[in-house]
Amino acid sequence: MSKVKISLDAMGGDNAPRVVVKGALMALDDPDVEIFLVGKVEQLEKELKELTTDYDKSRLKLIDAKDIVEMAEKPTDALRKKESSLYIAANLVKKGDADALVSAGNTGAVLAIAMFVIGRIKGIERPAIATPLPSTNGFAVLIDSGANAIVKPHHYLDFAKMGTFYAQLLGKANPTVGLLNIGEEEEKGTDDLREAHSLLKNTLKDQFFGNVQGRDINNGVVDVVVTDGFTGNVVLKSLEGAAKFITTVIKKGVYKNGIFAKLGALMMKKVFDELRNKLDYRNYGGAFLLGVNGVTVIAHGSSDELAIKNAVNVAVKGVRMKIVDKIKESVENS
Amino acid sequence: MSKVKISLDAMGGDNAPRVVVKGALMALDDPDVEIFLVGKVEQLEKELKELTTDYDKSRLKLIDAKDIVEMAEKPTDALRKKESSLYIAANLVKKGDADALVSAGNTGAVLAIAMFVIGRIKGIERPAIATPLPSTNGFAVLIDSGANAIVKPHHYLDFAKMGTFYAQLLGKANPTVGLLNIGEEEEKGTDDLREAHSLLKNTLKDQFFGNVQGRDINNGVVDVVVTDGFTGNVVLKSLEGAAKFITTVIKKGVYKNGIFAKLGALMMKKVFDELRNKLDYRNYGGAFLLGVNGVTVIAHGSSDELAIKNAVNVAVKGVRMKIVDKIKESVENS
Repeated sequence: MSKVKISLDAMGGDNAPRVVVKGALMALDDPDVEIFLVGKVEQLEKELKELTTDYDKSRLKLIDAKDIVEMAEKPTDALRKKESSLYIAANLVKKGDADALVSAGNTGAVLAIAMFVIGRIKGIERPAIATPLPSTNGFAVLIDSGANAIVKPHHYLDFAKMGTFYAQLLGKANPTVGLLNIGEEEEKGTDDLREAHSLLKNTLKDQFFGNVQGRDINNGVVDVVVTDGFTGNVVLKSLEGAAKFITTVIKKGVYKNGIFAKLGALMMKKVFDELRNKLDYRNYGGAFLLGVNGVTVIAHGSSDELAIKNAVNVAVKGVRMKIVDKIKESVENS
Repeated sequence: MSKVKISLDAMGGDNAPRVVVKGALMALDDPDVEIFLVGKVEQLEKELKELTTDYDKSRLKLIDAKDIVEMAEKPTDALRKKESSLYIAANLVKKGDADALVSAGNTGAVLAIAMFVIGRIKGIERPAIATPLPSTNGFAVLIDSGANAIVKPHHYLDFAKMGTFYAQLLGKANPTVGLLNIGEEEEKGTDDLREAHSLLKNTLKDQFFGNVQGRDINNGVVDVVVTDGFTGNVVLKSLEGAAKFITTVIKKGVYKNGIFAKLGALMMKKVFDELRNKLDYRNYGGAFLLGVNGVTVIAHGSSDELAIKNAVNVAVKGVRMKIVDKIKESVENS
């Protein structure tokens, strides 16, 4: 297999660059991966030195970038920082030196720079973040889960097409699509949602399930849940918070209820491991920014090294699956 | 203590009237509660007969209503059905015959009829649904959790005031308020949210925490989470779905992993009971529709008898706490 080259923004994320360097080293476990680690080289070298001397230097290359995009920086300001690690990392993909961009940095900035530097796929007006979430039916893709706070009715159709395609890549044969709304009836929600509903219905025909509600994300009713990036982001983070809250309540309960409950928890270890596995966002690693003309993976701002490693793995998968070419084909044929 | 009179819409909800009748009978356990059960009397009498003959007839009165508001009916259509159980139940509160309205029916219809028949509190433009959700800090009130799909910036301030007041009633001394958004920075979100942010900041001063994200609902960062009714409804139902999904994964896991895991689960019974207690929406029973000029409780459409009983209890509490009078005072003084 030919090597997959990943351009990794070493300075993006709440715990950068330390965890990004660690994650990059972990990602080298896959012998077919090559990583461009983009950031302040002096700092990266120092981190690397403290961590290990024993890694394949031919597959981990340091690329210098003098500047950093801060986590709270406005996208418009970030776009002007042409010497930032994010900008330079994106440029490697644009020039064809790397196959995919991975960043745990400022989402708005990643979106803006990916769109501006790498560009959009022709026919897709608004790239969107697609996040697979666990459901009783395996998973459901939530799209847009954070790229576009305001969308127009016809954007929902783009999201539906890209989400469908992504669900297919992940193994669903005939993905069904639901429009996230406050009720199942066709006339629910805002004017924009009613227009989106009729557009999805007329275009996707049987593939369109209709409106779905918040509770349907996890319950396996549909394979793709389409929504605007504001609602998607809030829902995604709410679900993350709920999972954390529930595991905390269980842990505290076990601690409080003495040796008997502790032993019980031990005996249920397998069950809890499986649950953690299903809920832990780090296992998903990163989400594809679909619609950009190059594989782009956005990792969680609070990513640790495991999440970074998994985000690189997601990007590698996207490259191998030719996700960008295939979205192009599917847009051209529709 | 003087009796509290509850006007209960017997025909509202997915499982009406059966579970509503059952819930009403359960609610009579509180000797200071009187219930007007409004619906098709013939049907209600039949249900009652099948359930029991032994109940305090002086405290459960049947009121006839020829018509029903369907779960999918448009609010504007529902408003025209003046012989519906919901309309007549609301009218009992308007006339002063009952102290509070409880319905598990069509939320949009309850909202419209409550506003039209019972009326709004002067100074509150948009009544909103306030739902206490479990958090590491006890609870957080989510407002608006479903009444207004579209809101204007100044409505967030009304929601914040009513939510604060409600959190105080539930025991928080100095509730803090957060604005649900896609990032913590002041400039995040839409123009409307930025305007709402500055309005909340200037009016509530130190009581305003700033923007919060989805994950902050459960993690105890603030006591009141303010949002529009579209986002609130989707989030509320997403959290409900997540709780159901997680408990299903645990149950299935225990079943799959044999006798050892089953024994473990038994030993953890107390922990799981506590968790269920925290997550089960039926324990909250119903949510106040705040801003209406009479205590109004909206119960979940899929309520069972326990949820109905608890919704009646919530309404009784609201009457005893003089929730409407106190909101009036707090609006007049602000």
